[in-house]
Amino acid sequence: MHSFESLSKDFAAFFQKSHFPDQPASLYQPADYFLGLGGKRVRPVCCLMGNELFDEILPDTWQVATAIELFHNFTLIHDDIMDKAPLRRGMATVHSRYGEPTALLAGDVMLVVAYDYLNKVRSEHFHRIIQLFNRTAREVCEGQQLDMNFEKSETVSLDAYIKMIELKTSVLLAASLKLGAILGGAGEGNLHHIYEFGRNLGIAFQVQDDYLDAFGDPDKFGKQVGGDIMANKKTFLLIKALESADPALKAELDALLQSNHPDKVEKVLAIFRACGVDEWAKTLKDQYLSAAFQHLDDIAVLSKRKEPLRSLANFLVQRDY
Amino acid sequence: MHSFESLSKDFAAFFQKSHFPDQPASLYQPADYFLGLGGKRVRPVCCLMGNELFDEILPDTWQVATAIELFHNFTLIHDDIMDKAPLRRGMATVHSRYGEPTALLAGDVMLVVAYDYLNKVRSEHFHRIIQLFNRTAREVCEGQQLDMNFEKSETVSLDAYIKMIELKTSVLLAASLKLGAILGGAGEGNLHHIYEFGRNLGIAFQVQDDYLDAFGDPDKFGKQVGGDIMANKKTFLLIKALESADPALKAELDALLQSNHPDKVEKVLAIFRACGVDEWAKTLKDQYLSAAFQHLDDIAVLSKRKEPLRSLANFLVQRDY
Repeated sequence: MHSFESLSKDFAAFFQKSHFPDQPASLYQPADYFLGLGGKRVRPVCCLMGNELFDEILPDTWQVATAIELFHNFTLIHDDIMDKAPLRRGMATVHSRYGEPTALLAGDVMLVVAYDYLNKVRSEHFHRIIQLFNRTAREVCEGQQLDMNFEKSETVSLDAYIKMIELKTSVLLAASLKLGAILGGAGEGNLHHIYEFGRNLGIAFQVQDDYLDAFGDPDKFGKQVGGDIMANKKTFLLIKALESADPALKAELDALLQSNHPDKVEKVLAIFRACGVDEWAKTLKDQYLSAAFQHLDDIAVLSKRKEPLRSLANFLVQRDY
Repeated sequence: MHSFESLSKDFAAFFQKSHFPDQPASLYQPADYFLGLGGKRVRPVCCLMGNELFDEILPDTWQVATAIELFHNFTLIHDDIMDKAPLRRGMATVHSRYGEPTALLAGDVMLVVAYDYLNKVRSEHFHRIIQLFNRTAREVCEGQQLDMNFEKSETVSLDAYIKMIELKTSVLLAASLKLGAILGGAGEGNLHHIYEFGRNLGIAFQVQDDYLDAFGDPDKFGKQVGGDIMANKKTFLLIKALESADPALKAELDALLQSNHPDKVEKVLAIFRACGVDEWAKTLKDQYLSAAFQHLDDIAVLSKRKEPLRSLANFLVQRDY
């Protein structure tokens, strides 16, 4: 069994090459540029770990892991266009550097190349792999559409927000693990549990991300704390506060959402605390994390084999902040 | 053997259903809207014809034909965004009706659903089908990128323009025929010739399209004649005229390209005629059409079986205007 760190290093070495033809450079250089920005490669490594839970890592799994990472980067390039984001990982996004039309095409071609890697799979489970990959790809698009819809909605229910997060973030983590497990020969019960482990872990991670954006230690978090509040972004915290605040606090919160008051972040945080959404978010995160661990426990393999996935979960989501 | 008209009718009936889930409607309704705008469905029918040249039409071929049509529509949706086109087939484009972010995602999800149809193929040639589909998809993206590059270039060589047209338009026609032929069990030589038939036919069609935009009968052409000239679009005619005009005519043409003179179309057409590019274009088209028919002749099946493809070629490209 390999640790997350060890597999990350191996995957980075495997992925470190051009995935595209040379010409036209005006199309493929932007695609290479974006992949060169790096990333933690969590999803492809999950695919490798999902395989290794059940069997030695097979050559096919490296191909599927590569397809997953290319797919993920395709979604990031297109999301950045839709969100008009100037920066990603501190560097210019593809569209801000090369223009929107080229960014759009570079994303398209990256998705096509992801299918080139999938087409290298020779496993008997080939059609099932493509089916799950496609379903997940559709769901990720649906999640992005819901996210955009929510930006324009006055109110968003907590259930609808969780569904959106599940589609936009969680299903790809869950599917990455399951794709590896399918290749590793896992049975139906185990496939269910590893998918649910990933799905719950992904939601817990997003609750934590929303929490840290508001209440995190700026030195540790690595992003501007309060950025979501400044942007009126609908998060677990804001949605819950709008649902649970008493009329006076809700009126104050509504007024702050309309304003650009210099103390906006501080004042919104005070309301969040007054409504108890900070503690609520910790509890919610722990619920999803516990559900994830329960599904991990329920996978019928030796507990020792699960150690890398347990470490990964604890690395992605801390039990206390 | 079925005629193009008969297969078109059958394919329209097969394709006439929703290819997407119901929800979220904000994503899938725009995708359905675009498919509802119709089209001649030339490419999927070519796939059916490519199959029927060698064997009865197989169930797999309908799936691949559907994937091809979805892929083609995905490229149209994204091209319309890149070209900022307000209309397609006289109706609002997806981005002008639903906004660019949704159009981008609707295109993405249409490509994913194309792969869902490909994944239904159970032929022994499965991996080869995906490989050709992917290569073609990449090439179509490359062609669109080159087209955008050319818009910004001062000069474009005729060779570079033909290469762009080949990638942007021809390879999908060629691949559609070949995908059908692969499923129909054709051998390597026949596969080569059917692909080359489609590739040459596609280029002949584009030469004709450029010619008709300048010299066509407005009543028959169905588009505004002179639109390419008004937009300074690089076409076979303009590129050849810039290459072959004597210095005085070239200076006049360059000046017209900078102007919005009310007689611009008329004056440019006069220069085209003076350079003989109208006759040259007819000859060029005939060369590609002849090459296409030569490859059709070289396919080793009974001549009678080729009748539908011969009619299709004559329908798409007329020998005289």
